[in-house]
Amino acid sequence: MTGRGRGAYADIMTVPAPGYCSAAAEQLLDFVFAEVWQRPNLTRRERRFVTLPCVADADAEGPLRDHVYAALSSGDVAIGEMQETVLHFAVYAGWPKASRFNMVVDQQWERIHAERGLPVPAPEPLLPLTTPSDPEQRLCVGEQSFKDINCLPYAPNRDNPFQGAGILNFVFGEMWLRPGLGVKERRLITVACVAFQDAPYPILSHVYAALKSRDLSFDEMDELALHFAAHCGWPKAEHLGQVIAEQKQRVTAEWAGESEATS
Amino acid sequence: MTGRGRGAYADIMTVPAPGYCSAAAEQLLDFVFAEVWQRPNLTRRERRFVTLPCVADADAEGPLRDHVYAALSSGDVAIGEMQETVLHFAVYAGWPKASRFNMVVDQQWERIHAERGLPVPAPEPLLPLTTPSDPEQRLCVGEQSFKDINCLPYAPNRDNPFQGAGILNFVFGEMWLRPGLGVKERRLITVACVAFQDAPYPILSHVYAALKSRDLSFDEMDELALHFAAHCGWPKAEHLGQVIAEQKQRVTAEWAGESEATS
Amino acid sequence: MTGRGRGAYADIMTVPAPGYCSAAAEQLLDFVFAEVWQRPNLTRRERRFVTLPCVADADAEGPLRDHVYAALSSGDVAIGEMQETVLHFAVYAGWPKASRFNMVVDQQWERIHAERGLPVPAPEPLLPLTTPSDPEQRLCVGEQSFKDINCLPYAPNRDNPFQGAGILNFVFGEMWLRPGLGVKERRLITVACVAFQDAPYPILSHVYAALKSRDLSFDEMDELALHFAAHCGWPKAEHLGQVIAEQKQRVTAEWAGESEATS
Repeated sequence: MTGRGRGAYADIMTVPAPGYCSAAAEQLLDFVFAEVWQRPNLTRRERRFVTLPCVADADAEGPLRDHVYAALSSGDVAIGEMQETVLHFAVYAGWPKASRFNMVVDQQWERIHAERGLPVPAPEPLLPLTTPSDPEQRLCVGEQSFKDINCLPYAPNRDNPFQGAGILNFVFGEMWLRPGLGVKERRLITVACVAFQDAPYPILSHVYAALKSRDLSFDEMDELALHFAAHCGWPKAEHLGQVIAEQKQRVTAEWAGESEATS
Repeated sequence: MTGRGRGAYADIMTVPAPGYCSAAAEQLLDFVFAEVWQRPNLTRRERRFVTLPCVADADAEGPLRDHVYAALSSGDVAIGEMQETVLHFAVYAGWPKASRFNMVVDQQWERIHAERGLPVPAPEPLLPLTTPSDPEQRLCVGEQSFKDINCLPYAPNRDNPFQGAGILNFVFGEMWLRPGLGVKERRLITVACVAFQDAPYPILSHVYAALKSRDLSFDEMDELALHFAAHCGWPKAEHLGQVIAEQKQRVTAEWAGESEATS
Repeated sequence: MTGRGRGAYADIMTVPAPGYCSAAAEQLLDFVFAEVWQRPNLTRRERRFVTLPCVADADAEGPLRDHVYAALSSGDVAIGEMQETVLHFAVYAGWPKASRFNMVVDQQWERIHAERGLPVPAPEPLLPLTTPSDPEQRLCVGEQSFKDINCLPYAPNRDNPFQGAGILNFVFGEMWLRPGLGVKERRLITVACVAFQDAPYPILSHVYAALKSRDLSFDEMDELALHFAAHCGWPKAEHLGQVIAEQKQRVTAEWAGESEATS
């Protein structure tokens, strides 16, 4: 690794760069840390919310542990935000991978406190929830939240277990509405997750909604694609890039139409 | 493909086998349909609940469509069971892939009715739920259900969003308890999902619980591993096989201890 | 396992076959080692470059370790080639999984030398690179290399971070051009990676380019699909098989057109 690569690695990972591996690995480390992470349009903190789902998806225990440690140790991500990230990731990437992510978060949080000679603070209590408990009211909240977050005029039919018990009741009726993680951070996590999950419609709908809501600018979304490529591989990133290009056009056309309609 | 392979394909897929592809593909089709699907210990219906998560995970639109069609068209899986399978899959494999699975189920259900000249029946209503609505009660139900289904004497700490709002409130407080899909079918789906998700602890815990609960026999679990191998690949199946071997020993030892304790 | 299966396993894996697992597992091992690996059209060495990305993707630590050991220990793959394989894999499958692959390579290389009582040789130095350092020149080299390797008459727009900083500057301006791994081997790795990554366009474009460039013959590509099926599962392989069938037709038609044009 070059001196610049070593410095960038130590800055981002909060530990010294590893010793010499192979020529091939060194070159990749230089590219990822000294080039990609240094670019404008997404802050280092925002890049954490793209990186964490990528490493949690990849099942590579070492990188997951290192990035969780770095995000918490640097102070870029608070423990409550990290735990909400795990729940959000569980929904979009599956609970088994989230279960390991959750364990790693607990371990690294303890490790950081042990290294600093501090006790681990007590967790925030779960109850009371901020969302309604009555099933009919939850579904109504979920329907509105589904429309708002997806920038769509309709919500799915509730009389289907996946859509009713899952999407409306839990994902949009509860999970997206939880305080403790900003909507921009949820957008970054979601786009990363749908991009590695590959199912075509969710990639399209979440890229669209992130741009349409203006939660992510066009430049931020392009930057997300590059950061994602470096951490989840080029083929998935190439597909994401195509979807982004199409959805930018769609959103631009819709904004032009809305601007005409209101002028 | 041999005549035996063609017959097996038509029987399982409910449509004629494809024309000649390549010698390599023919050999694989023969192995999968004329050997694997014909083996004892898991019925054709039970093999559907292993196959469906594998093809829904793989993002291969064609095989997913074909297997959903075959499972419904053969009458092996009822539409309500298929829809519960989608929700269960969503939790263990992530909502984006489940979203596509859900769309494919709707399309194939309509296609089957169109082919038969029948109207699509109205869906079952979602409400009322069979589980409590009060948040504290739901968590208590979730804690008990977590212990029962995982064959564990404890439940996770609820003051962690992933564990409290996710696992206890929704996954075990609601999803696993929904009527409309048997526990054996949920075991088959879950083991397939944790096996392709790769996170080490969930594979171990769900293989253990499926065996310990006697919901799956040792022979059924071995058969699941072979069926999984044919649909998700040999490396993940090899890992699953190792976990199964270890958990069989653990469960056998525990049963021996319990039998001594009660004699 | 049959005697033939045991012999094939020992030959390919360079260690004795495991003891009896289950009837189901034995049948699979026989199929994979005594049938698939023994087939014509791809050599044992070439099958290594399909197997390695599949096991590195699958996150099954045991099979990854065993196949890295076998590839190096058999002498089929030199250490420098293996390290280039890790870098190539990183680009197409993502950095976190490659990071683990890289560690496993180091460990197995040390293990082989320890078993033989030999010191681990010093690694090849990274510098000097064979590609230009000047950013403008790198982009030009990347554009030409993109066209050559993808068999396309155009290169993507450089004024986009993913395409410019990623694809042109690094993937085609540097990585594909590195000496130390042949283009045929890079084709085998790439097709395996895009096939398990699932993003639709890269599967199509890399299968097309591998056939159009004549780096892989039609028969070799069919064989790759079967080998991939055995290691990454049947649904993804079925999708790959469909793409191969379409791209064979496209390439055949293009060659016919070119032959007419020059006659």
